[in-house]
Amino acid sequence: MSAVADIVGRADAAFGAARRADRPGRAAWLAAVADGLDDGADRLVELARGETGLGQERLVGELARTTAQLRLFAAAIAEGSYLEATIDHADPSTTPPTPDLRRMLLPLGPVAVYAASNFPFAFSIAGGDTASAFAAGCPVVVKAHPGHPETSRHTARIVRDALATAGAPDGMFDVVEGFEAGIELIDDPRIRAAAFTGSLAGGRALADRAAARPEPIPFFGELGSANPVVVTPGAAAARGAELAEGLAASYTLGAGQFCTKPGLVFVPASSAFPAQLRAVVTEERQPMLTEGIGSAFVDGVAAHAAVDGVEVLRAAAGPGDPALLVVDAERFVERAEELAREVFGPVTLLVRYRDGRELDRALAATEGSLTGTLHHEPGEDVAYVVDRLVERSGRVLFGGWPTGVAVSWAQHHGGPWPATNSQHTSVGVSALRRFLRPVAYQTAPAELLPAELRDDNPLGLPRRVDGALELA
Amino acid sequence: MSAVADIVGRADAAFGAARRADRPGRAAWLAAVADGLDDGADRLVELARGETGLGQERLVGELARTTAQLRLFAAAIAEGSYLEATIDHADPSTTPPTPDLRRMLLPLGPVAVYAASNFPFAFSIAGGDTASAFAAGCPVVVKAHPGHPETSRHTARIVRDALATAGAPDGMFDVVEGFEAGIELIDDPRIRAAAFTGSLAGGRALADRAAARPEPIPFFGELGSANPVVVTPGAAAARGAELAEGLAASYTLGAGQFCTKPGLVFVPASSAFPAQLRAVVTEERQPMLTEGIGSAFVDGVAAHAAVDGVEVLRAAAGPGDPALLVVDAERFVERAEELAREVFGPVTLLVRYRDGRELDRALAATEGSLTGTLHHEPGEDVAYVVDRLVERSGRVLFGGWPTGVAVSWAQHHGGPWPATNSQHTSVGVSALRRFLRPVAYQTAPAELLPAELRDDNPLGLPRRVDGALELA
Repeated sequence: MSAVADIVGRADAAFGAARRADRPGRAAWLAAVADGLDDGADRLVELARGETGLGQERLVGELARTTAQLRLFAAAIAEGSYLEATIDHADPSTTPPTPDLRRMLLPLGPVAVYAASNFPFAFSIAGGDTASAFAAGCPVVVKAHPGHPETSRHTARIVRDALATAGAPDGMFDVVEGFEAGIELIDDPRIRAAAFTGSLAGGRALADRAAARPEPIPFFGELGSANPVVVTPGAAAARGAELAEGLAASYTLGAGQFCTKPGLVFVPASSAFPAQLRAVVTEERQPMLTEGIGSAFVDGVAAHAAVDGVEVLRAAAGPGDPALLVVDAERFVERAEELAREVFGPVTLLVRYRDGRELDRALAATEGSLTGTLHHEPGEDVAYVVDRLVERSGRVLFGGWPTGVAVSWAQHHGGPWPATNSQHTSVGVSALRRFLRPVAYQTAPAELLPAELRDDNPLGLPRRVDGALELA
Repeated sequence: MSAVADIVGRADAAFGAARRADRPGRAAWLAAVADGLDDGADRLVELARGETGLGQERLVGELARTTAQLRLFAAAIAEGSYLEATIDHADPSTTPPTPDLRRMLLPLGPVAVYAASNFPFAFSIAGGDTASAFAAGCPVVVKAHPGHPETSRHTARIVRDALATAGAPDGMFDVVEGFEAGIELIDDPRIRAAAFTGSLAGGRALADRAAARPEPIPFFGELGSANPVVVTPGAAAARGAELAEGLAASYTLGAGQFCTKPGLVFVPASSAFPAQLRAVVTEERQPMLTEGIGSAFVDGVAAHAAVDGVEVLRAAAGPGDPALLVVDAERFVERAEELAREVFGPVTLLVRYRDGRELDRALAATEGSLTGTLHHEPGEDVAYVVDRLVERSGRVLFGGWPTGVAVSWAQHHGGPWPATNSQHTSVGVSALRRFLRPVAYQTAPAELLPAELRDDNPLGLPRRVDGALELA
């Protein structure tokens, strides 16, 4: 038996115990992991700095966000409405008579999580996918990202220790490393779902594999996002310089290595915005996560720059050096197949539009994104822009910049293909839904019903009873 | 442009108008379709009788269920909690400050529905998939089942007329016919999701195609289900004859052509149940839906009967004639790859178990099912049986028979592969979720927010505000 098969076997065995654990017990596991990570913060940040080139402040913040995320899921499972507990009492008056039916969501089983390169904490070993799968009651096997192996191993030790101390079943969590292990994981029949954050090529390959299994499983992939930003004529006139400062900071933040980096910015052709932006782009060259990511950035910028009609406002001197490109909207539409696609790293493409018609056509030529951002002034007609951004993205911002993703109840981090292949979020409380499936109990005697579905509501859950929502 | 491309183009154009329609408007469309079908009931039932061989009473009941289903979805969208409206107000006290975020679910876009053979109304042109997609706000293109073409065409005329009269946009609904049209439909880039009820082979082929598109789409398939039933020693002793009557009626109902037909029945080896059942199986031969389904039934029974150790208690004289098989649990486990799979039609396989260990191992060898049923007596230790049925199915019945699927808030019609490939139901109110995707609005001015997400809650929706559920 391979190491991967052994680990998945232990995860499968743990599932039997995990799904019997009550919600307060699972919440305590999440809290214990959060506490363990907080206690080990100094060493974790030191390891991640050495392996990723990301800065101290950023990594301290990311780790705090990661532990806050674990605690939010602990609160959400304690609240319990994520179970969608629903009771329809029997109705003998209908034809045919309606039986007593009670529905709730249950965990799917062992989950494979594919860690990302660019968030060594928040989207890695103990990140949002792991936290939401634990919260759902699913054991997790993480495929570590090779970009930060020691950070991953140290995080894994902390998670394992915390879970063991908190009384979670053995096998609830483990980590595998290496490309082949990742493939073996997605093919293992005991894995019931997978979550992935990474490149379009890598995600697509795993998604195809998940779909081609003898028993296909859900694969929740976050694959790539250009994150269009629209600056209206009013906004460009009123706040052009300020917006240029904000955009420069956002697209070069963390060397542009964010899934929400603004990669396409639609600006009025008549405005001074390109020059304003050019003037404030930092000269500081930042390290990139890996050599491969650095060379892919340089190649990606070169490919965009080579498209006829694209002007280079600022050339990247190498990996991590900010680049700035500009093109007319008409040409963008003609060459959208190349220009609409994300280039990972500190580069953005300005698209100059002459009027609303050109803007609308250019937005229609973009791909699905995680975010879409609008900068406008009161009184401008932007309804058609909002429609396009809603159609093409999962989070629409009015002002501000898309980098920075709050972890909360209302957050949605997802979007039409290729942003994700999912109708669910990977950030925020409803990320739980990815690892759950409904089960209905028909005419069950009270003693065989889960406590969540008993008439006396012993756990004090919010539920829907005979069609009407009831609070806890 | 092909006929399919033309129809999908009109559906895509309709989507722009459909997603702007308010919920009372959409509810009225559903009600109008229900009224139109009720008004046309006599002719519809007459056509369906001629094409399917199903009986008058069954078809009248099925049509009533279909219109009740449309009206339930109309009520559900009026209630509005399916939108999952969630508001997190800004919190400047956090590090970093949390922005104002508001999330709700929006329709996906044009949906392809693949109609089933065995429910000419409830899972066909105006069945549950069509109703839930309309309710979500999605235009629908149905691929009609060739088993009842005139019923399909007449239903489609009624639906089109009702929608036009109710003011739904042109293109909101249409029908295509033929195998090739079905393939063209799933490949069309403007189709955003698909729902299918039918055979494992057909569903798998379409699911693979949906996953292999340049932009993969969600495919919600209901593919095949053996629907295990467990009769405990206590139940067999106390009510053997009564259970035999019930099972005989359930597995031969509608010539066994139900996705919830009980196809595997686990009975104590020491009981008289097989003989009791054999004694009450009706001699009446019923017509099957199509010639192909009839010959597949005969072949499927023959294949099971040919497995070494399987005894034929009653041979099928031909299509639609009930068959009854029996096998020991040990042999069932050894040959589960063949014996655990559904045979569509009036046949069930009794599996004789000698003790709880054998029963548990035999249940573990079954595939995923839509339903699992337990007949037991108070005081018997059945917790491990319930665990297995919950693990392997989407609806667990305590007493009663799985044929007959109530349409209600708590219903779940789905289950682990191959029952479905989905974490969502195809029957009951939450079927809506299949055709929706979340969108979050960040820091949106009130005048650009959907009414559902405004602070003053002008539509009186149930919502989650700052983490707490609030009723309408």
